Amino acid sequence: MKIAALQMQAVDGDIETNIARIATAAREAADGGAGLLIAPELAVDGYGAGEAFLETASAAEGAVIERLATIARENGLAIITGFAEKDGDVTYNSALFTDGAGTNAIYRKSHLYGDYERRWFRPAAPSSAIVSHGGLNIGMLICYDVEFPENVRRLALDGVDLVVVPTALPNGPSGAFIADKMIQVRAFENQTFVAYINHCGTVGRFSYAGLSRIAAPDGSLLAEAPAEGEALLFAEIVPSDYATSRAENSYLADLVRPV
Amino acid sequence: MKIAALQMQAVDGDIETNIARIATAAREAADGGAGLLIAPELAVDGYGAGEAFLETASAAEGAVIERLATIARENGLAIITGFAEKDGDVTYNSALFTDGAGTNAIYRKSHLYGDYERRWFRPAAPSSAIVSHGGLNIGMLICYDVEFPENVRRLALDGVDLVVVPTALPNGPSGAFIADKMIQVRAFENQTFVAYINHCGTVGRFSYAGLSRIAAPDGSLLAEAPAEGEALLFAEIVPSDYATSRAENSYLADLVRPV
Repeated sequence: MKIAALQMQAVDGDIETNIARIATAAREAADGGAGLLIAPELAVDGYGAGEAFLETASAAEGAVIERLATIARENGLAIITGFAEKDGDVTYNSALFTDGAGTNAIYRKSHLYGDYERRWFRPAAPSSAIVSHGGLNIGMLICYDVEFPENVRRLALDGVDLVVVPTALPNGPSGAFIADKMIQVRAFENQTFVAYINHCGTVGRFSYAGLSRIAAPDGSLLAEAPAEGEALLFAEIVPSDYATSRAENSYLADLVRPV
Repeated sequence: MKIAALQMQAVDGDIETNIARIATAAREAADGGAGLLIAPELAVDGYGAGEAFLETASAAEGAVIERLATIARENGLAIITGFAEKDGDVTYNSALFTDGAGTNAIYRKSHLYGDYERRWFRPAAPSSAIVSHGGLNIGMLICYDVEFPENVRRLALDGVDLVVVPTALPNGPSGAFIADKMIQVRAFENQTFVAYINHCGTVGRFSYAGLSRIAAPDGSLLAEAPAEGEALLFAEIVPSDYATSRAENSYLADLVRPV
């Protein structure tokens, strides 16, 4: 399956503008032959929305999810995007998968980063939300989650081909290191594809690193965005092309758990 | 503490030559102010010794270990080196720590790579051998072990400052990826130092990647050897210099285990 990913400059607290941007990218992704479009962490709300999350957060069955499902259906592809999820009095930093044909799945971020996220969101227990789409098993993580090898390993042992990671990686030396080295290592050490899709630009109090990338099981990059500016990435995800890499780097088969 | 590490071209099956080479490096390391010298995987025996391991393998209390302890004592430093360990009828791919003052510790490789290693060695259950030396808590892994994030994490959660990894990384694309990206990621994701010390050159049936490196908790390289040729690396290991990196990348504190 060909996938597309939108490195995006979202507007904090402006759901209309952000959903419209996702809809435009969905059209462009579909025109390019993609069966899946990925948008960043909290792309629907804007990562820096802060107090506005109380207004923008959507229930899992809410109108925002319905609109995203409609965009998916109208363009004949699935969408994975970050959004603020309201569950009663609790707000989660979540990712939605919708194929527009009635299948939705939600993953809730387990590893929140820093005081800002901990103020607005509740962390979920680590969990695996895995969907089947376009011949691939797809798992989801969000941003800081992927920096913990345990989270990617859990999905890999559950058999995912592709780990999709909406993110909001800030500018700075750690950000550059994570984008330039860690994402490829996560792919290689699990022999999976990893799509790590970021915001860009400076929005309110946050400056984002850009540098979205789609890594292959052999650690190579199939697509990468620059540090600055929006970009729509495309990549073909073909697990059978990496049989040699999986045979030579047989981590999942060779892993020994401590007794 | 300053440490030294020998990227080495060992001779298969020739213990005398290899121990003499380690002794020369120990003298040079001590002259340079190092409190620890590291040599590669099976440096005592030669990684490619094959059937000769049956002759070269030493018991934990054997003459080879005594000679290494003597070299350590005479040079006023500790030594970590790979060696083939005989334990009754069983042979392990092990690493020895000796400070020359009566403290020895042995780590046995848990993750053997490929048919060659599995023919000559028995894998040990994953374990932590941690020693205190020069103000540092030091853990050991061997080669393929470090490619599994679980093994480095176990040592980091046990409080090591420095993970020492004698290795025998072969030439090739996977080798370059591991040396160029994975070792730094292992350091960064655990906020520990990692010293990854390899063979070089072509010896018998094996061609080694060289590219030994010593990585710091912020993912930077403190020392690196070229792909070709022997080299003696030096690096100062000062955990307190990386307090900012540990605070910003608080992986060990933030890790959430699945319930």
